[in-house]
Amino acid sequence: MSWQAITSRDNPHLQRLRKLAQDGGGYRKLGGVWLEGDHLARAAVQRGVTPALALITDVAAEDAALHAIADAAPKVLVVSPALFKTVSGLESPAQIGFELALPAQPRIDARADTVVLDRLQDAGNVGTILRSAGALGFRQVLALKGTAALWSPKVLRAGMGAHFGLKLVEGLSVEDLDALQVPLLATSSHSDAMLHQAELPSPCAWVMGHEGQGVSDTLMQRCALRIGIPQPGGEESLNVASAASICLYESARRRLARS
Amino acid sequence: MSWQAITSRDNPHLQRLRKLAQDGGGYRKLGGVWLEGDHLARAAVQRGVTPALALITDVAAEDAALHAIADAAPKVLVVSPALFKTVSGLESPAQIGFELALPAQPRIDARADTVVLDRLQDAGNVGTILRSAGALGFRQVLALKGTAALWSPKVLRAGMGAHFGLKLVEGLSVEDLDALQVPLLATSSHSDAMLHQAELPSPCAWVMGHEGQGVSDTLMQRCALRIGIPQPGGEESLNVASAASICLYESARRRLARS
Repeated sequence: MSWQAITSRDNPHLQRLRKLAQDGGGYRKLGGVWLEGDHLARAAVQRGVTPALALITDVAAEDAALHAIADAAPKVLVVSPALFKTVSGLESPAQIGFELALPAQPRIDARADTVVLDRLQDAGNVGTILRSAGALGFRQVLALKGTAALWSPKVLRAGMGAHFGLKLVEGLSVEDLDALQVPLLATSSHSDAMLHQAELPSPCAWVMGHEGQGVSDTLMQRCALRIGIPQPGGEESLNVASAASICLYESARRRLARS
Repeated sequence: MSWQAITSRDNPHLQRLRKLAQDGGGYRKLGGVWLEGDHLARAAVQRGVTPALALITDVAAEDAALHAIADAAPKVLVVSPALFKTVSGLESPAQIGFELALPAQPRIDARADTVVLDRLQDAGNVGTILRSAGALGFRQVLALKGTAALWSPKVLRAGMGAHFGLKLVEGLSVEDLDALQVPLLATSSHSDAMLHQAELPSPCAWVMGHEGQGVSDTLMQRCALRIGIPQPGGEESLNVASAASICLYESARRRLARS
């Protein structure tokens, strides 16, 4: 592993990392993903990901555990905390980060338990849903065009490492979903059935819609069921990541009850 | 209703609103709460809240619906969008906002379905949990000292109006929870039972812990049950707001199944 101290903020590596860290969709052009913080970096390494590059502060490099994480990269750049801060997109910058090559988009698995994201705007919501999908056993996430960029630093942070255990496909059109052979289930306040009572097919694809507008009409027409989440409190709605977590839990619960 | 045009950014009302909007815990000193955006303002009015003051842009004041919302306040200040922006704490400022008097803290209801927040740091998580609590029928939320300020602008935004239907008490010590006569249930990876199998008391108090550290030891000792959420996907954890939503849903589902 090659370790190199960098002191110039104009270093071309740092310029590239700065773009990746601070432009959420930048990876689509640049083909690299910025991953910040020891938790995420460790999660990537544990999943067998080899980073292209590590950036670490001179302070963190003295820490044996952090040093070992950085050493997973073939090239490690050591910088001052002040210089790390010029790269980080965070209010409280971390002390270590990776650049990964953007993973190639996998093919859609026709029969997998799936979550479909229909133009979700909020990166925190998207990352939280990936995290719940990973925990609750929905291994494939399909994002339609207009959804927050899945590999953006904000989605990665909220995902807490879930990215590395999931099959992620983004930039899809509604028609691309025809590749799925499992029924689509949408959450909707105009529902055919309530979540706690409905027969839920398994495997299935749970469709989560835009924070303000919900699932689009064209996509809703392709859904086999519209499911309502019981809200005895009578408030108008749940946050979309909360709704997703509840639906995925209910599917997982039914499966556990059958097995 | 008194409507008044303001053009100076040094206007004392605007100075006060700026503090309320931009300092998350500022309301504790100032006794007023800043509420931004037509959705939240409308939710407050629908719940019977009378704002102390409304701030509206001259553009929005031309809109009949927004004009009517502002008119719920005894005093309405009309400003240019540029001046509104100097008050707003948002990247994309809204066009209308309210100052409310900080609601008096209610007494703890000993027998109510409750959510306890143990030093949750993230305002988005806290607001999302309030929203789920409102939707799923948990009408009381008790926040221990160290939890993000419940009436901060960020928590209010994530709560989407849920605040106005809940009994909210904050700044509590662990000992204050002795006032509760319902069993405390904590989520924990070191669990006595799994959520989908455990007998869940009703009413109960679900305890949600710090994003990194979980529920504190002293509080855990007061919990009647430690409950695990099944994670067949094997990931290490769920976001705390997702976990809360799943637990509250499971409690609500059991109740619906009994009734």
